[in-house]
Amino acid sequence: MRNTRLDDVPIQEALDQWSQSFTFRRETETLPIAQARGRMTAEPVRAQASTPPYPAAAMDGIALRAEAVSDASPSSPVQLREGRDFTYINTGDPLPRPWDTVIMIEKVTEIAEGWVEVTEPSPPWKHVRQPGEDVAQGELVLPDGHRVRPVDMGALLAAGVERVAVLRRPRVAILPTGSEMVPPGTPMQRGQLREFNGTAFAGYLEEWGAEPVYRGIVPDRRKAIRHAISEAVNSCDIVVVNAGSSAGSQDYTPQVLREMGEVLLHGVAARPGRPVVLAVVRGTPVVGIPGYPVSAYLSLDWFVRPLIDQWYGQESEVSPTLSARLIREVRTKTGAEDFVRMQVACVDGQYVAAPLPRGAGVTLSMVRADGWLRVPPSSTGYPAGERVELELARSPQEVEKTLFLTGTDDPLLEELGALMARQPKGWSLAQMVTGERDGLNMLQQRECHGVAVDGEGWSEVVPSDSPSLIQIHLAEREIGWITAPGIQVRQADDLLQPGLTFINRPAGTETRRRLERALAGSYPSDWERSIPSLWKAAAAVGERTADVTIGPRSVAQELGLDWMPLWREPFSLILPEEVFKSPAGQALLKILRSEAFTHRVAALGGSGSVSWKVIRQKGR
Amino acid sequence: MRNTRLDDVPIQEALDQWSQSFTFRRETETLPIAQARGRMTAEPVRAQASTPPYPAAAMDGIALRAEAVSDASPSSPVQLREGRDFTYINTGDPLPRPWDTVIMIEKVTEIAEGWVEVTEPSPPWKHVRQPGEDVAQGELVLPDGHRVRPVDMGALLAAGVERVAVLRRPRVAILPTGSEMVPPGTPMQRGQLREFNGTAFAGYLEEWGAEPVYRGIVPDRRKAIRHAISEAVNSCDIVVVNAGSSAGSQDYTPQVLREMGEVLLHGVAARPGRPVVLAVVRGTPVVGIPGYPVSAYLSLDWFVRPLIDQWYGQESEVSPTLSARLIREVRTKTGAEDFVRMQVACVDGQYVAAPLPRGAGVTLSMVRADGWLRVPPSSTGYPAGERVELELARSPQEVEKTLFLTGTDDPLLEELGALMARQPKGWSLAQMVTGERDGLNMLQQRECHGVAVDGEGWSEVVPSDSPSLIQIHLAEREIGWITAPGIQVRQADDLLQPGLTFINRPAGTETRRRLERALAGSYPSDWERSIPSLWKAAAAVGERTADVTIGPRSVAQELGLDWMPLWREPFSLILPEEVFKSPAGQALLKILRSEAFTHRVAALGGSGSVSWKVIRQKGR
Repeated sequence: MRNTRLDDVPIQEALDQWSQSFTFRRETETLPIAQARGRMTAEPVRAQASTPPYPAAAMDGIALRAEAVSDASPSSPVQLREGRDFTYINTGDPLPRPWDTVIMIEKVTEIAEGWVEVTEPSPPWKHVRQPGEDVAQGELVLPDGHRVRPVDMGALLAAGVERVAVLRRPRVAILPTGSEMVPPGTPMQRGQLREFNGTAFAGYLEEWGAEPVYRGIVPDRRKAIRHAISEAVNSCDIVVVNAGSSAGSQDYTPQVLREMGEVLLHGVAARPGRPVVLAVVRGTPVVGIPGYPVSAYLSLDWFVRPLIDQWYGQESEVSPTLSARLIREVRTKTGAEDFVRMQVACVDGQYVAAPLPRGAGVTLSMVRADGWLRVPPSSTGYPAGERVELELARSPQEVEKTLFLTGTDDPLLEELGALMARQPKGWSLAQMVTGERDGLNMLQQRECHGVAVDGEGWSEVVPSDSPSLIQIHLAEREIGWITAPGIQVRQADDLLQPGLTFINRPAGTETRRRLERALAGSYPSDWERSIPSLWKAAAAVGERTADVTIGPRSVAQELGLDWMPLWREPFSLILPEEVFKSPAGQALLKILRSEAFTHRVAALGGSGSVSWKVIRQKGR
Repeated sequence: MRNTRLDDVPIQEALDQWSQSFTFRRETETLPIAQARGRMTAEPVRAQASTPPYPAAAMDGIALRAEAVSDASPSSPVQLREGRDFTYINTGDPLPRPWDTVIMIEKVTEIAEGWVEVTEPSPPWKHVRQPGEDVAQGELVLPDGHRVRPVDMGALLAAGVERVAVLRRPRVAILPTGSEMVPPGTPMQRGQLREFNGTAFAGYLEEWGAEPVYRGIVPDRRKAIRHAISEAVNSCDIVVVNAGSSAGSQDYTPQVLREMGEVLLHGVAARPGRPVVLAVVRGTPVVGIPGYPVSAYLSLDWFVRPLIDQWYGQESEVSPTLSARLIREVRTKTGAEDFVRMQVACVDGQYVAAPLPRGAGVTLSMVRADGWLRVPPSSTGYPAGERVELELARSPQEVEKTLFLTGTDDPLLEELGALMARQPKGWSLAQMVTGERDGLNMLQQRECHGVAVDGEGWSEVVPSDSPSLIQIHLAEREIGWITAPGIQVRQADDLLQPGLTFINRPAGTETRRRLERALAGSYPSDWERSIPSLWKAAAAVGERTADVTIGPRSVAQELGLDWMPLWREPFSLILPEEVFKSPAGQALLKILRSEAFTHRVAALGGSGSVSWKVIRQKGR
């Protein structure tokens, strides 16, 4: 292998160099108007016919010559004979020659069969729509480089244009590589992985105006990759090879591209997304994109989206930005630009942001990300409290409609979030799992809207200068041991069995404190091993990387694991009074009191009814 | 006919009443992920599998038990036997039991066939991705009521979800009525009209998330309309009947709807768009929408779009607004809310707006509209100079990239606009035909970016306190008589022939002034008949509603009309120096000097080369 070290070129520089090293062969296609929505005109479009195509009556009435009634008045009415002096006409009918004016039927008196009387003049072209009044032959309807909107579709047809020349969409080949990959819709065996980047790529490409061509999974073999790229460059305008772009042993893409064409660069100064390969093969741009989903989507955005803009000759869209205060520090390494996925909330009119926890999982954190923080290569990050500029992945309006909770985790909060999202107002719910003490401190600092707590122990850690607080009791939930089949754990001491592995709840949670008290000084060796997500802890038990964890029955039930009850505890939300009284708080309350919520509590194995009380009056 | 008078109910009131009088039967459909982009989830989606599905190596290396190397150090290395103590493993491979840690291959020394040596401990789960680390079975991936984005598609597949339940799109039937209507793609005869609203409707409906069902044109017969509505309400969720909704004699829709179901309202207090009919037939909402395109699209937006939002349980999108200074008065009648199509420009950092001239034609003015001004029912409009709040139809960024010209009209300006739009920066060009004097006054008031002028006479009407101006000479154009076949006009006096009809250029144009001088006091009787658009004037000659007009050869040529030369005149743009030097001005200049522009000048029958000179220095 010739080059296992990666380059370190800034994104924009890499893009500029690459995009100047090939020329697109743009083509035009001619579509019926009904199929042209969203497409870009390839040439100026002029009206091919006039609307109306002829002078037309704008009223129901009689058509005549203006001259005939130029002297008419109530005292000297003019009598007209049908056929000779006038004809009856309906709105929209062509005006027959030599008529040049229309009198409304209401102003015409029929005096005998075939005879009418008119008592006022009607100047030429009154109540007549001129030919081309709406659109005249020859007029420019659309310039080139224009995206066809619905209103344009109507105008084109009105202008006698039946087909319109638009730029063909660039065809972008998607080549996922990896012998262990299985395409969507196919059953998987152990050791195989679902290929999903390709489907997300196709979605992005369609949104950006390209035609994705998913060419199927290519096995990790040099010859197969070579063959697949060769076929793709012949039929597509841009080729995306996914995975196989790092400097590892099975990554043939950079080597193959070097043999087939010119590799301009292997490695950009950005994290994640570093091991990108930019090449040109037989005049066609080929990009090798890493397999890790965050890197993959970012690289696609950095290197393929601008090419699509280049194809259309349009300026790249700029993401909306937002200034927010960091409520958690952001730590990065120098040497590359870092792209950090951020959670953003609007508390008390101020935007606050925190990096999404790494433990949240790559895929879900991409889904949950409200925005991105770009940390320059020279920086090691920012301390909490710093103001930063974020690129938003959602609109500021959506962010403002998010209730941001901290504290402890429970599937019930996910259900609550789902019920909020179903509201017409489009509220959503975001959570950062922090433990109760941290959550209550954040509440006091106005860094979140509320804290989820279990038990009652949290009340001891409320900061003394907290605002007035309301406790909303959501449900009684049952906490117990979640165990793998064959594992016997009944009481806290059983955790001390030799060889038994345990996943704890995170520090600062009531569950952990209660367990700590029960153990009274002797702890299992892996006491500090914790996973914030109940689901991830249970998945570890399911796959036997641990024997036991502790959590609510609902989680064990969903995963088909054994569960042994320990205690029941109240699960509550703590909200400042002003949040409780705000529209978001009232929307929340409405949901909590709904039948739908009661059903979901029951489905999760909880019980009890929603109630609330003031638990702290400011200054008392 | 029972009711020929129209109601006068405000839009929101009408909508509220209507939307409460039926209940949608929403349905769910289950789609493969690849087809779910943009669709709305019908229920919360939980992960059905974990990714990774098993503990997996995060590095290439050896898998072993942490216990085996807990005491390893450089001074006391631990020797391990393949198969018994460890196995080789690649990144991503499942970690076989009982191994619980991975050591990177770089840190392993092979000491003999099947034997390696390790010099440092590796704690449990180091370099091991936990099952569910990315997404764990049971975790909520998407709430319900969520529009599926590309990133979500990847996450769903990663979570083992192959199909997702989404809301079926509401089916909206489109029923254009009118015996004279011909659908797109069919040849037309005189007296027939192209049906184009239906195609625009379909485009809007798709953008709003509905499934348009174009059901073909219904003839203006009671029975046919009744039958078409009856079939549509059986198979669709919303029915749109186009035209046939005014109170005229051939408008059967309201009558038919009264016979078939309940008509809630006939007539809203809005202009245009007043004669809307809102009805419910067999539980399905039916709306009768006027045929006039502006009314049609507005009514669709008022009454069908909110129904689609209601279907999805989502809040209606709010149009972006902008505050602008009126540079022309807006006159309306009281009694109904008026919706005025507006042209908007950003001159010198200030937004200015003017109503689009009625003469511009309905269809093109819809295409050209930058926004809407809503004038309340109690108001008679606003004077020039007033600040008004507009609803934008384009983004403020697009408005800022528009060079706004006044003055005289020429097809060359359309070509110039088309060339500007083709630039990657996305400049566009808008024009208001004003005549030169008005244009120059507007320039001085900073109400436009430049003025198009012909001849040299304009220099006499430059206001004395104008800013420094640059004249850009675009081309020499040939002006002459545009005549219908058989009409002989050679000199100005020929306009005085009895019976000859003439369309003049608008007041304030150089062409008209020159002609006025040539006529020296005796004018044809229709001297005041003018049409600002050269194309519309020529279309009138083409259809013989006039015999002659005056204009450039290019227009006559395009329409196949006779043309007789009169004079050549320079055609120029006058720009303030600061506009000339601005990025927009320089983009313009670049185009003017391009070969493409020269070609287009020649194609239009003009000639000459572009040049510019400072024609007025401020304060000299």
